[in-house]
Amino acid sequence: MDYQVYEPEDFVVRSGLTLRNARLVYKTYGVLNEDKSNVILYPTRFGGTHVDNEYLIGEGMALDPTKYFIVVPNLLGNGLSSSPSNTSIPFDRSRFPQLTVHDNVLLQEKLLREVFGIEEIALVVGWSMAAQQAYHWAALFPDRVKRLAPIAGSARTSPHNYVFLEGVKTVLITDPEWRGGWYDKQPQAGLRAMGRVWAGWALSHEFYRKHMYLDLGYSSLEDYLVAYWEAVYLKRDANDILAMIWTWQHADLSDNDIFNGDYEAALGAITAKTIVMPGRTDMYFPPKDSAIEVGLMSNAELRVIPSIWGHYAGGPASADDVSFVDTALKELLSSNDLMMERLDYCRASSN
Amino acid sequence: MDYQVYEPEDFVVRSGLTLRNARLVYKTYGVLNEDKSNVILYPTRFGGTHVDNEYLIGEGMALDPTKYFIVVPNLLGNGLSSSPSNTSIPFDRSRFPQLTVHDNVLLQEKLLREVFGIEEIALVVGWSMAAQQAYHWAALFPDRVKRLAPIAGSARTSPHNYVFLEGVKTVLITDPEWRGGWYDKQPQAGLRAMGRVWAGWALSHEFYRKHMYLDLGYSSLEDYLVAYWEAVYLKRDANDILAMIWTWQHADLSDNDIFNGDYEAALGAITAKTIVMPGRTDMYFPPKDSAIEVGLMSNAELRVIPSIWGHYAGGPASADDVSFVDTALKELLSSNDLMMERLDYCRASSN
Repeated sequence: MDYQVYEPEDFVVRSGLTLRNARLVYKTYGVLNEDKSNVILYPTRFGGTHVDNEYLIGEGMALDPTKYFIVVPNLLGNGLSSSPSNTSIPFDRSRFPQLTVHDNVLLQEKLLREVFGIEEIALVVGWSMAAQQAYHWAALFPDRVKRLAPIAGSARTSPHNYVFLEGVKTVLITDPEWRGGWYDKQPQAGLRAMGRVWAGWALSHEFYRKHMYLDLGYSSLEDYLVAYWEAVYLKRDANDILAMIWTWQHADLSDNDIFNGDYEAALGAITAKTIVMPGRTDMYFPPKDSAIEVGLMSNAELRVIPSIWGHYAGGPASADDVSFVDTALKELLSSNDLMMERLDYCRASSN
Repeated sequence: MDYQVYEPEDFVVRSGLTLRNARLVYKTYGVLNEDKSNVILYPTRFGGTHVDNEYLIGEGMALDPTKYFIVVPNLLGNGLSSSPSNTSIPFDRSRFPQLTVHDNVLLQEKLLREVFGIEEIALVVGWSMAAQQAYHWAALFPDRVKRLAPIAGSARTSPHNYVFLEGVKTVLITDPEWRGGWYDKQPQAGLRAMGRVWAGWALSHEFYRKHMYLDLGYSSLEDYLVAYWEAVYLKRDANDILAMIWTWQHADLSDNDIFNGDYEAALGAITAKTIVMPGRTDMYFPPKDSAIEVGLMSNAELRVIPSIWGHYAGGPASADDVSFVDTALKELLSSNDLMMERLDYCRASSN
């Protein structure tokens, strides 16, 4: 087991249900410094775990474990943290509570505070659904989040993104083998069909025009659809997928008691120094949406990843994208380093 | 019955099978002039009939039936022309031949020649899959097609477009009620799920961001998904849809004995004066693809419809789009009129 588990006894979620023995799986990289000022929070994406985040972590990279204490909490529903597939009766499978991004963030906050005594976060960074978590963090805890880097994500799920998710969800639940979630074995046909539908959404028109699936080692388009896309979804639990989709569809940083649905106020509340990085060809979270969100924030810059990888922009598949993101994160963190140097200077002077 | 039926006895299609008593449903508007020089061919789109084409036909419009003889042939597989749902055994339902755009065009050519003695076509115009038919016409019969106007379409189906279609196809055939095509009643769940998936593809991100489904009279996003999208597919026959999808997925103006797969040669063979009109936000046939195709043609102009209607650009939903297309078609036809005037002048001079 390469991770830790945080299990608060009772965690009441927004829907009013209680996650008893909630399970938040996380992994840390690096060492927490004495004044707890070197914390980077780096949540996970839809269908991923902490392992899938590691491509941006490494010595010499922005997320450098020799300098920072990097905490990677796993998304609720991902099969490691509390999920339909690992929760005991009566809240197992189809009865798993509908969880929001807000629920995820509050549980993460509890972890940081109760386990590590962390109050201040130097940077919250995340890709895709993790970018959504990052936005929520910065809006809910503006005094504690110093830097923010949402990559290929949004503060609120757009209607079009919702419709795309509604489509892939419907594909899966239309398979009668899903049995309303009470299956004994995974609904094979539904999972495979979901993968085939997802294939068109995730990568860009240009990716397909250039036949880049061949560069990835697949022998044909059909080979890519089966050997990559069907296989990805066959590895996942149907109810877990549906739980994460619900969370994604309902992501909205203003849907809570602080902002009461006032999306502009929520984005306006963010004070963190921010670089927002959408992918140029992303059909989930197009740059135009990011530009609107940047316009509603006080200290944010839009930096579009010039990628043809569609939604995969900023992900591990493209070395150029990784370099682009890493450079931006270094820039963002360097202002943080300066601040820390000044703090050190002040402390030295006052001694 | 508001249409005509052309039924050649035996029509051998590209796959080698014979459509016995092939059925090509068509409707004409206007009167064929004496020298048969006023012909506009205007095929139908995926899932549509001649009725769905009528929004561009009218006195004072470019497609003016008081000036032109407009022939609208229905796409094979659309339920009116030969289709799985209306073909007798043994080629009914799942045994319906896989038909290409090339097959459609050859049958249309036969209709024009045998029934009307038409050789020359002033304009071939079509939207979406009908644009694909238009490209085929201009490449296969360059000496006979004088003008070409493909709207929201392509000369060859792109890999990304193929993948999107593969997704919606898979949704439908995953419903066990489809029964390999031998259903007694339509596969309801599969058709509905297909509609829900299709919803995300057809309209643009901006369309959804601006909640334009409300302007269309739907009371919510879910209302739009059910009352429009599920309803559209519930009205169609599953095997007919699959037949048209097969045709669409395999559209390639060079896939024939003339060009033998040489896509560039096929586009290069087109001599018609052409205006290609992709929609700015179309995810099926993005403007960038159209620009590539225009670059391979000798007499073509790219004119992007500044529409937020996604693939529906140039369709009847937007008055601005209709006006944009109509203006372009008038411009295209006016050069034709000039030519006809010159012809008249020559004839007058030689008398």
